[in-house]
Amino acid sequence: MIRITFPDGAERQYEAGVSAMDIAKSISDGLARKVLSAKVNGQVWDASRPINEDATLQLLTWDDKDGKNTFWHSSAHLMAEALESLYPGVKFGIGPPVDNGFYYDIDLGGKTISAEDLVAVEKKMKELASQKNPYIRKEVSKADAISYFTEKGDQYKLELISELEDGKITFYEQGNFTDLCRGPHIPDTGFIKAIKLTNIAGAYWRGSEKNPMLTRIYGVTFPKQSELDEYLTMMEEAKKRDHRKIGKELEIFTFDDDVGPGLPLWLPNGGVMIEQLEKLAKKSEQKAGYSRVKSPHIAKESMYLKSGHLPYYEDSMFPAMDIDGQKYYLKAMNCPHHHKIFDAVPRSYKDLPLRLAEYGTCYRYEQSGELFGLMRVRSLQMNDAHIYCTEEQFESEFRAVNDMYLRYFEIFGIDKYVMRFSTHAPEKLGQKYVDAPELWKKTEDMVRRVLISSGIPYIEVADEAAFYGPKIDVQVWSAIGREFTLATNQVDFAQPLRFNLKYMNNNNEPEIPICIHRAPLGTHERFIGFLIEHYAGNFPAWLAPVQVAVLPISDKFNDYAAGVVEMLKKHEIRPVFDTRSEKIGKKIRDAETRKIPYMLIVGEKEAENGTVSVRKHGAGDQGSVTAEQFIEQINLEIEPIFS
Amino acid sequence: MIRITFPDGAERQYEAGVSAMDIAKSISDGLARKVLSAKVNGQVWDASRPINEDATLQLLTWDDKDGKNTFWHSSAHLMAEALESLYPGVKFGIGPPVDNGFYYDIDLGGKTISAEDLVAVEKKMKELASQKNPYIRKEVSKADAISYFTEKGDQYKLELISELEDGKITFYEQGNFTDLCRGPHIPDTGFIKAIKLTNIAGAYWRGSEKNPMLTRIYGVTFPKQSELDEYLTMMEEAKKRDHRKIGKELEIFTFDDDVGPGLPLWLPNGGVMIEQLEKLAKKSEQKAGYSRVKSPHIAKESMYLKSGHLPYYEDSMFPAMDIDGQKYYLKAMNCPHHHKIFDAVPRSYKDLPLRLAEYGTCYRYEQSGELFGLMRVRSLQMNDAHIYCTEEQFESEFRAVNDMYLRYFEIFGIDKYVMRFSTHAPEKLGQKYVDAPELWKKTEDMVRRVLISSGIPYIEVADEAAFYGPKIDVQVWSAIGREFTLATNQVDFAQPLRFNLKYMNNNNEPEIPICIHRAPLGTHERFIGFLIEHYAGNFPAWLAPVQVAVLPISDKFNDYAAGVVEMLKKHEIRPVFDTRSEKIGKKIRDAETRKIPYMLIVGEKEAENGTVSVRKHGAGDQGSVTAEQFIEQINLEIEPIFS
Repeated sequence: MIRITFPDGAERQYEAGVSAMDIAKSISDGLARKVLSAKVNGQVWDASRPINEDATLQLLTWDDKDGKNTFWHSSAHLMAEALESLYPGVKFGIGPPVDNGFYYDIDLGGKTISAEDLVAVEKKMKELASQKNPYIRKEVSKADAISYFTEKGDQYKLELISELEDGKITFYEQGNFTDLCRGPHIPDTGFIKAIKLTNIAGAYWRGSEKNPMLTRIYGVTFPKQSELDEYLTMMEEAKKRDHRKIGKELEIFTFDDDVGPGLPLWLPNGGVMIEQLEKLAKKSEQKAGYSRVKSPHIAKESMYLKSGHLPYYEDSMFPAMDIDGQKYYLKAMNCPHHHKIFDAVPRSYKDLPLRLAEYGTCYRYEQSGELFGLMRVRSLQMNDAHIYCTEEQFESEFRAVNDMYLRYFEIFGIDKYVMRFSTHAPEKLGQKYVDAPELWKKTEDMVRRVLISSGIPYIEVADEAAFYGPKIDVQVWSAIGREFTLATNQVDFAQPLRFNLKYMNNNNEPEIPICIHRAPLGTHERFIGFLIEHYAGNFPAWLAPVQVAVLPISDKFNDYAAGVVEMLKKHEIRPVFDTRSEKIGKKIRDAETRKIPYMLIVGEKEAENGTVSVRKHGAGDQGSVTAEQFIEQINLEIEPIFS
Repeated sequence: MIRITFPDGAERQYEAGVSAMDIAKSISDGLARKVLSAKVNGQVWDASRPINEDATLQLLTWDDKDGKNTFWHSSAHLMAEALESLYPGVKFGIGPPVDNGFYYDIDLGGKTISAEDLVAVEKKMKELASQKNPYIRKEVSKADAISYFTEKGDQYKLELISELEDGKITFYEQGNFTDLCRGPHIPDTGFIKAIKLTNIAGAYWRGSEKNPMLTRIYGVTFPKQSELDEYLTMMEEAKKRDHRKIGKELEIFTFDDDVGPGLPLWLPNGGVMIEQLEKLAKKSEQKAGYSRVKSPHIAKESMYLKSGHLPYYEDSMFPAMDIDGQKYYLKAMNCPHHHKIFDAVPRSYKDLPLRLAEYGTCYRYEQSGELFGLMRVRSLQMNDAHIYCTEEQFESEFRAVNDMYLRYFEIFGIDKYVMRFSTHAPEKLGQKYVDAPELWKKTEDMVRRVLISSGIPYIEVADEAAFYGPKIDVQVWSAIGREFTLATNQVDFAQPLRFNLKYMNNNNEPEIPICIHRAPLGTHERFIGFLIEHYAGNFPAWLAPVQVAVLPISDKFNDYAAGVVEMLKKHEIRPVFDTRSEKIGKKIRDAETRKIPYMLIVGEKEAENGTVSVRKHGAGDQGSVTAEQFIEQINLEIEPIFS
């Protein structure tokens, strides 16, 4: 018998050789129908693979990221099978799961494939799926593997095999298709109920332009047709709300070749949004007792050797600059600078918690092919802060951070969110994780307690913590249901030690503080990118670059209208003044297109009565009031955000 | 006869061979007594040197920077003469004027010299000065120059001579001392009335640690004893107000070895000052119709080739980083990024003036030996903006910028200031200056008109403009009379062309805008450094990191005091709460040491009456009021700054 330990700590005995699927069935048939793969001792396995010794086990379903990945990876194999049956002789590169689906890179030997052809491939895939062919794992020798693909004439697979170690090679087979593959896969093709091939692109073999160009086919699949339908509707809507498109139309940001890819320039409208977000953050943080600091964007190599980011994280950093014989790096994170500020003066327990906040701009190297609008950039303006506290203070500090998240969710109308709580894996202590089992247990327990008691929805994921402590990624869903990872929240008991940070406790003995890294509003780049989609550019008044369009019905009322504009400005409302000699209908349409929250229309009646006729974006006429009354009304909308 | 043109454009005829001193005497003896040297065709000459052809002439006195430099350079020679008479066989390196005085690097051949010995040197200098020995310029052949210093055994001068071209070598002689020197010098040693040798330091010959270490003696001299006395008093006071000392005591900023020299870290108190200065700038700029933008801290090489900063300015930039085969540079100025933002959308005359503002942090390489506290740094947070306007708009825009300066001077109690208006030199068009004579004349005239009509004190200096247009450096004097160059204001008609910036005029034809570069508050680094000295750390309430210390007389009143603290915070006043079990006298002394503007003392009487006893820093007791009344009072001080 072997002992299986479940995520909640429960243990059960099973015969050696039992599979995750057997175990799922032993619990319930309903559960078994949902199991796609399983995490065994921290590794993702086929649900059908025999377990021969004591192990930790987590059953993976569609709700788990790893479960989804298994599903989509298996879908790539299914697509390959369909392609092979329709295009005999096709060669295969690689076919991984991606964020929303999967792709396979193929070599059609000179033949081309069009979007229309994909319909036939989809149809074939559905047919093969309905056969419920099992995915079968086979260990093969290197010689056999080479011989199989030599016979098939697939030089790509042969190149991959040549780099593998004999004895560690596996094939997966389903129906009439066999692939070189590490796995894992779902039990059988019948799990795949809904299929959509979405795109065709070119891609160099192994990403190098020296290699042949292959054809990359993208697809997405679901366990239910309704889920695919929802997904396609959402993607349709997302296309309309594309932050790159709206960002250009509303003149929020731009990119420039002489500046460089992944480095957005914020136009005046974007500048307003940044200022408003910073005002929100600064007000919230001031009330929560944070201190603002400011640090340079570079530091010496010794800083990042001390922090441990070098050489570990070097690939994600910009290359060094040599100054006076010393290497300097653009900062990729603010924490080391903040640690130095903590350390600049002697600290006592009376100074704690010390909360150091900075909108620090960091620079991270992303491959140019990975860059995507504001979502994947090289410059990151981070709503950063580091909280240094005692162990006793940790829970209340961590809770306060979560409360700040919840308030932001409310302000931005984010109804669906979940905190992804990443913990360590005990077997990787000393390698992937700081070797401090007690501290891991203690801080993870503390974090879990706060999450549970504050009623925030969360999921716990083993083996995804940062190397210095447990981590929380905050996932939110935009108004159209797309998922974004926006912010992180990390507990750090390792860096303070590396930087030799100390405070004197009330017995006048030195102690090491705990550090919480937090960035509830993420970066300006990603957050504004998210907000553009979330609001479809229809920003609430407090955030809108232009809040009010003042529209005189004809030139005769320009003087009166100018007075209104001046009054708005004096009250720090952001107006535009449309003095074009256009019909009022056209002026209104243009203001609606620009998604300006309010329009104030002034004509003869308004000039006579000293009023403005208020129109709300997307909601039409709101009646007439005096300019003062309007200012009062709009301030009722704006002020609560900052108070 | 030759024609001499004066700075005001007046012309006079003189015999060829006339000297600047002759000309001065022909005007008035009083003037002649003040002439130290003269600018002839843009070059600084001895006042006694014959002028043989038509020339422009500016007489230089103590009030001109070049006049001062001549005076101090001659003082270095005087010190050398004194040293040679007291230390026969002494060898001389170089002896230039510096910001406040002069130095000479000497080799005493193993002998040492102490601060006490300097008294004798000073005495000797005074004796030699009273002899009124003229400084005599002599052209010498290279052979004669070598022979003179070979005989004297001065290897340093021989090394310098070896690098000079025959026919361009001059000696200067006064009394018994002869030096290799380009000049110019003052007429005679009698002009030097007050002498103080201030410091002794070590300095490697020619700045290289591979060379021998010489002894550097610093001194300062004046044309009047009273000026020296004032200077010494000011320096004494400046020492007490040293921004590095106060910056450390008040925990405003720090430097860290792992971050790097010249890269300040702003501690929470500095963070408050930065936030307040930015609030002031943002409010002022918002009212003046600026738009805020945001740009990354790096850009590609092509950007700086386009702007012309590369290769011209490369030595002052940080070295390039290689990313994806492209060179990227840390930005040393924000203008190219702002030009790109101007250019990101089509512009029409209706969009102008477009005023783009950003607190952009730039990075400039300064040699580590040049770095000095916040005054000379490598990271510069600049109160930057670029105004794009038409020619017709230029004057009013430029005037508005000057008005902003004047308002800031008033806010900061800067009573003494002058704008140093740097113009081009017609003979250097096409080399040092953009070759556009008409544009130079036009813009310089426009700037001059604004300066005159707005009544701002200014001096005009030829041949110091930026390569793209006339420049204004703003010089201010701190409360103790020290001079600082804080900010610049530049007109740019060249960069917009290089960046191909255009707007459509009202005939729908493309035109190139003029650009004004302006930074009235300079950089946070230099400005806060200045303010620390200016206020000696006694910041006004709006700027003070901590505004109010709440001091309970004993623990019994902590609860009542806590209520006061909360009320202050609610009104966005920045308090500290001193709950230590110390005597109230000690608490007050500590708050005074921390230079906190207000102290609120609460004891039995205050708790009973619901009041606070107000004490003002440096001004003692101000009587009792309710907390609400105090908040009203302090807000009366703070609010006008931001309105």
